[in-house]
Amino acid sequence: MSIIGKNYIGFSQSADNAKTFQSYVPVSDSHLSEEFHPATPEEVQRTMQLAEKAFDEYAALPAAKRADFLVAITEEIMAMGDELLERAHQETGLPMGRLQGERGRTVGQLTQFADLIREGSWVEARVDTAQPDRQPAPKPDLRKMLVPIGPIVVFGSSNFPFAYSIAGVDTGPALAAGNPVILKAHPAHPGVSDLTAQAIVKAAKRTGMPDGVFSMLYDDGYEVGTALVQHPHTKAVGFTGSLKGGMALYKMAQERDEPIPVFAEMGSVNPVVILPDTLTAQTDSLAKTLAGSVTLGAGQFCTNPGLVFTVESPALKEFEEKYAEEVGKVTSMTMLTEGIRQNYFKLRDAALAEPEVETLVLSDEKVEGENQSQASIARVSGKAFMDNPNLHEEVFGPFSLLVVCKDMEELQAALWHISGQLTASLMADADEAARYPQLLRLLSRRAGRFIMNGVPTGVEVCPAQHHGGPFPSTTDSRFTSVGRDAILRFVRPQSFQDWPDSLLPDELKNANPMGIWRLVNNEQTKEAI
Amino acid sequence: MSIIGKNYIGFSQSADNAKTFQSYVPVSDSHLSEEFHPATPEEVQRTMQLAEKAFDEYAALPAAKRADFLVAITEEIMAMGDELLERAHQETGLPMGRLQGERGRTVGQLTQFADLIREGSWVEARVDTAQPDRQPAPKPDLRKMLVPIGPIVVFGSSNFPFAYSIAGVDTGPALAAGNPVILKAHPAHPGVSDLTAQAIVKAAKRTGMPDGVFSMLYDDGYEVGTALVQHPHTKAVGFTGSLKGGMALYKMAQERDEPIPVFAEMGSVNPVVILPDTLTAQTDSLAKTLAGSVTLGAGQFCTNPGLVFTVESPALKEFEEKYAEEVGKVTSMTMLTEGIRQNYFKLRDAALAEPEVETLVLSDEKVEGENQSQASIARVSGKAFMDNPNLHEEVFGPFSLLVVCKDMEELQAALWHISGQLTASLMADADEAARYPQLLRLLSRRAGRFIMNGVPTGVEVCPAQHHGGPFPSTTDSRFTSVGRDAILRFVRPQSFQDWPDSLLPDELKNANPMGIWRLVNNEQTKEAI
Repeated sequence: MSIIGKNYIGFSQSADNAKTFQSYVPVSDSHLSEEFHPATPEEVQRTMQLAEKAFDEYAALPAAKRADFLVAITEEIMAMGDELLERAHQETGLPMGRLQGERGRTVGQLTQFADLIREGSWVEARVDTAQPDRQPAPKPDLRKMLVPIGPIVVFGSSNFPFAYSIAGVDTGPALAAGNPVILKAHPAHPGVSDLTAQAIVKAAKRTGMPDGVFSMLYDDGYEVGTALVQHPHTKAVGFTGSLKGGMALYKMAQERDEPIPVFAEMGSVNPVVILPDTLTAQTDSLAKTLAGSVTLGAGQFCTNPGLVFTVESPALKEFEEKYAEEVGKVTSMTMLTEGIRQNYFKLRDAALAEPEVETLVLSDEKVEGENQSQASIARVSGKAFMDNPNLHEEVFGPFSLLVVCKDMEELQAALWHISGQLTASLMADADEAARYPQLLRLLSRRAGRFIMNGVPTGVEVCPAQHHGGPFPSTTDSRFTSVGRDAILRFVRPQSFQDWPDSLLPDELKNANPMGIWRLVNNEQTKEAI
Repeated sequence: MSIIGKNYIGFSQSADNAKTFQSYVPVSDSHLSEEFHPATPEEVQRTMQLAEKAFDEYAALPAAKRADFLVAITEEIMAMGDELLERAHQETGLPMGRLQGERGRTVGQLTQFADLIREGSWVEARVDTAQPDRQPAPKPDLRKMLVPIGPIVVFGSSNFPFAYSIAGVDTGPALAAGNPVILKAHPAHPGVSDLTAQAIVKAAKRTGMPDGVFSMLYDDGYEVGTALVQHPHTKAVGFTGSLKGGMALYKMAQERDEPIPVFAEMGSVNPVVILPDTLTAQTDSLAKTLAGSVTLGAGQFCTNPGLVFTVESPALKEFEEKYAEEVGKVTSMTMLTEGIRQNYFKLRDAALAEPEVETLVLSDEKVEGENQSQASIARVSGKAFMDNPNLHEEVFGPFSLLVVCKDMEELQAALWHISGQLTASLMADADEAARYPQLLRLLSRRAGRFIMNGVPTGVEVCPAQHHGGPFPSTTDSRFTSVGRDAILRFVRPQSFQDWPDSLLPDELKNANPMGIWRLVNNEQTKEAI
């Protein structure tokens, strides 16, 4: 397949805008030849009208048909083979192995959602049968299930060209639930976005989906995203990126005549706390594990461990030396964009220049090419950390600050200065952890996922995953972007009172034709009524 | 018990403010003698600090202890006997029978939440066990459940002195989930609020709850409510009232440094659509049923049917006459406050004065006393309705507008002008309803609860209830204020990765000591691991 560069408005292509932009290749600081056309306001309007029109038909399809569509997307993506991976590699600088893994995760996510909706119990069906003779008033028949809400706008993210972009963690569950999806492609990888959009359109046509179930628009500025979020047909927004970007969309959405939810994942410093006995027992392995996590993928993960807390202890010096040694030998990587690299060095240098911050190591193994990262770790005392809000913020990239507190009391005081996080990690065995119940509560209050003896990088895609923490790590800590519950962002419950069985959705019919789990008169059952 | 009139800051009482206000008695347009002290900024601060302090201890209590507390509240409320009902009757003008029923519902709600948390499956536990040998990377052990979020601010509402006030639909689930609750008492019924707060404090002490698990503050203005919503310790807000009031709180909460959810139920016109064959078949009974629903409780319900849609048909004239006759003989009732009565007559008169609006009947049976309502219905054509946005808004009180469309096409066009609603009703048998799939979708999109052949008044408290519709009927259509799922407003999911079994919450332990339903490796089960 070749890259088209036009906006995908449902099954049509459109390029009204004379202005274009091109793919940036970070490793060579150059541009590729294809031209991409930012959508015009008229194209946005056309897209949203088509999505709204498609909604009723798409939402009414049996779940099995929507599952076929999701599976077809995975097939079309895989059918593109290495062409897709190579384009992603060019546009992001990410290694082929990582991209292959990310593609696998993306296809896996879509397959999980196909399985989820085929099985059907995810709609949380509840049935309370009528009691016509109840005194003083009869009880009606009430049935409830989750239903789709309408067109969903999704922003592709720069650091995951597959898993958090065109066919990623927002698109999959939004489509699975029965909502049309409108993508705003990230300008950092328009080519891979274009190819993926072609795969989705092909899958939609092949499985008989309504025109408008999926659209994708380009922009290298903010106009298209703004118009999409403000459009009255839009019912929710998915976004992964910076705090600034997420909050801009969030505020925009709240200021609409009809406020809508924005699920923005906005960054996190993912504190790691190492208790002293554990530091002593596992000095070397902790240093290695942490160094690997801090530098993984040039630190370009929302789960990068940006702050590591521990206390003065005899093992500390050896740990610091080993940690510095491990980080020091990390080879540099191409960062995603010129802007991300510049921002990384700016924020890192600012952090290193703060009072009482001592650089532990700056890695020096360089590879050829532009836009290279440099892994860096530093150390600061608990007191200096508490006194300096500049040190509490995320530095996106392979940087981490070791906060050395004088004792456990100071460590807990320092944690009060940490805001909401995607994750928190505690390095401790059960006995040592149990000695600090207040510390466990402190970390719990601040984290969406609380890890024992593990690093935050690596987000398993499974039902028990919660990838979403208290503000400001996300705009809504009640929802996850990873795992089956990600679908709950794009639905609402609806009750049906005294409906004739023939008109009810299958999930709520007496016979339970889908054989799903339901709460019937307050009992979990798969039985018919 | 006697009324104290001081703010309940945890287990202490406080009345720093020299300014006071008194209970208004609507039926006699007079005031009672007791004085209530609005909270000062310092009292608000003290209250929130105490709530924050209580949170960790309260959240860590076993669910059975919290259930004991909820049951104790019901016992203390019932122990107050008629004194509580009589005070409510004085302050609201609502009939004793209604208040007795509402008290029963309130106690029933609390009991349902006690049962829910004792059983325990509501936490939506999910367990994915580790696969240490998985390739290419081991799979960690992940477990997830819903956890409480912190202090919840609840605004008492004017129209339900029990069920939506101090111990009502927000307080019950917030406490059940493990959150401290801070009430802002509604100034329309401070005495019944005071007595209920005493009952809750007594129950909290008797069952060994931490000081600060519950507080209640007075105000007859907006300062206290504003300070509570803006306070950094507040993690969510529950409100039932006007669109203006709800949106003011919502915007305030979004403008905080840390935005928090506001669950505001703000009003609804609850459209009722009568299909022509059904109008013909059930002319008299429909007229009676509707008249009863429009005038119930002087129309002071969020589920009052403010708009009734039908089409020109031979049975229409007879229906209108019967409907007018039934509404005409309704006896007037005391309205809740002077302000509500004035607003009712102002908005009703404005609606009746709009072009092409024809008054069908104004009831004339008056009872003695001040603040009396007057049931009123009017009629307008579909076209005039569509052309006039003033007719689309709620008139809080016993008023309803019959919109007569020239055919089903116009009726469906008219429904496009209706915004989000708590409920929609369709009067039709299965065959007639099935002829209008587009109409079903139109109503579905707009309603939280979709009723067949029934009126919207009467909100059954049961698991399948969804009392919460698309904006602007509520600020968040994903959550209900009635039924067991109301608890979902006051929690967030949290994942525990690779935790030692001994430190996990009981709900997630291998042995499943609470015997709850869990999703274990993607299968629903009560089995241990």
